[in-house]
Amino acid sequence: MAGKDISVSRLLKLAHQFNCFYLSGLQSGNSWPFIVAGRQVGLIRPDVLSKLSKYPEVFNFQTNCVTLNPAFRDYAERSAKIEEVLKECRAQGTFITLKGWRDECYEVRAGFSSEPLFKMDRSATCLFGICNYGVDINGYVMDPEKGLCIWLQRRSPTKQTWPGRWDNMVGGGLSVGYGVLETAHKEAEEEASIPPELMTKLRSGGSVSFFFESERGLFPNTEFVFDLELPINFIPKNNDGEVEKFELLPAKEALVRVLSTEFKTTSCPVVLDFLIRHGIITPDNEPHFPELVELLHVPLQSLYRVRSCTENGDVCTT
Amino acid sequence: MAGKDISVSRLLKLAHQFNCFYLSGLQSGNSWPFIVAGRQVGLIRPDVLSKLSKYPEVFNFQTNCVTLNPAFRDYAERSAKIEEVLKECRAQGTFITLKGWRDECYEVRAGFSSEPLFKMDRSATCLFGICNYGVDINGYVMDPEKGLCIWLQRRSPTKQTWPGRWDNMVGGGLSVGYGVLETAHKEAEEEASIPPELMTKLRSGGSVSFFFESERGLFPNTEFVFDLELPINFIPKNNDGEVEKFELLPAKEALVRVLSTEFKTTSCPVVLDFLIRHGIITPDNEPHFPELVELLHVPLQSLYRVRSCTENGDVCTT
Repeated sequence: MAGKDISVSRLLKLAHQFNCFYLSGLQSGNSWPFIVAGRQVGLIRPDVLSKLSKYPEVFNFQTNCVTLNPAFRDYAERSAKIEEVLKECRAQGTFITLKGWRDECYEVRAGFSSEPLFKMDRSATCLFGICNYGVDINGYVMDPEKGLCIWLQRRSPTKQTWPGRWDNMVGGGLSVGYGVLETAHKEAEEEASIPPELMTKLRSGGSVSFFFESERGLFPNTEFVFDLELPINFIPKNNDGEVEKFELLPAKEALVRVLSTEFKTTSCPVVLDFLIRHGIITPDNEPHFPELVELLHVPLQSLYRVRSCTENGDVCTT
Repeated sequence: MAGKDISVSRLLKLAHQFNCFYLSGLQSGNSWPFIVAGRQVGLIRPDVLSKLSKYPEVFNFQTNCVTLNPAFRDYAERSAKIEEVLKECRAQGTFITLKGWRDECYEVRAGFSSEPLFKMDRSATCLFGICNYGVDINGYVMDPEKGLCIWLQRRSPTKQTWPGRWDNMVGGGLSVGYGVLETAHKEAEEEASIPPELMTKLRSGGSVSFFFESERGLFPNTEFVFDLELPINFIPKNNDGEVEKFELLPAKEALVRVLSTEFKTTSCPVVLDFLIRHGIITPDNEPHFPELVELLHVPLQSLYRVRSCTENGDVCTT
């Protein structure tokens, strides 16, 4: 209970890990806002800034922000011009993250409910600190003996990112042209072969948001979370070669797994949110409960909105 | 779906209402940090500052913050000295909120997991912008015909705050000496006469946090939320005279009620969170879903932590 334990709990330490940029890098002010059509859509680290400065016809450098050349008037032109630069960078090996080029694009917007301004290969969004949106499905079983059990997947050892790490049962990014629910159904089929009749039990449960940083770049991520109760005899089966195996774990063992270094750091928020919503992590067993819940929902939607860009490129607060 | 509707939804407008201080007053910088034992525990509005300046032996005014006299060395002394001032203010009618003096105290801490520094009557905490913690129980029924239904209460017309407004089935503040789960059980008995055998189904579901402001003061509130599935034939019955009546509403009608002006503004977050966790409000029917979820969990635990006070009373970032 409150006050009983004032040391930082293991769960809070983990929440600090997947929010490492939110809690420190963001405050440092070293990264510059990335402005498109007068609105901030991202944040660029100094190491990336120095590389992009070689493309002044695409990226205009102001005193404290980078603006996409306003001569590019629409979605298609902006997308094409940026892709050209990224493909050159990829060919020259400028950024490690581009080794994982996916030929799959994410929409870039100034806030989830705004119109897309352009699209970008998903391997590159972390260079620009662009908000990524994904969908995750918590597959669970109510076992008469073991109680609440959760299906986890082990990522294939050949995956470009986080190879061999433990992960949620089903998860995938929101690609251009796909809606949230649509992505949930697509990924459930591709990653775990869940038949449509079982998917009728899919329930929206909320979303998590956090801001992670790695050597690859910046990851302001929002995941739409769904819960799916599965029959006790159903076993997920991978369809796309991206999963090594699945394992069903009682809730408390799943929590131990999440706390281990074997779990993909950026997938931990979804499991923690599930365990909180299902009464496994509670204010009575986690002394930092309110802070943990807040760190699962950091204010990404307003993070970039406090700044906008005037016509001459200056950043000002609105 | 995303991009389809870019106007501000009714739900987002409501989230702006119960976060009116978080979204505007906080940025204005007109309120001053309230520092106790070197740590910020609150925020004081200019109207309150001018009244408190009459008590320099208790409240030390620095250039940009107010410090509780550091000569008060412990919990008991701090509590007593502040209570003395508040009782004088109450007798003189200085603050309208003190008309609702409750003889019931809240602990004051710099963060939920920190040791309490002193206690204060619950009617006064809004004068100092002190974080309040409460417990709410969403009582619900799975009706075979109507689906998910929610019990709401109408507050007594004689209540000091929000008289006659609609509210959650059960809710109450975390008073000195009571834990989270303990408060849930106490309030369930007092407000709705829920028998212990039904309370075995009580499940922790998370917490919401928001920062509201009214003419009475500042309300940075965290509510620990619990769900309780009730039998279809159970009817809550008030025990303490604070409830006019209870009503069971299908989830969608409950949402209409929450959006009406008849609902207590600061109780809306708990119902919205319930409707999100139970798949009624989803990314497919609410275009601003991620922003709504973030505004139900604003970072109150870190809001005051960025500042601490040096020995000579200056506020500095840590």
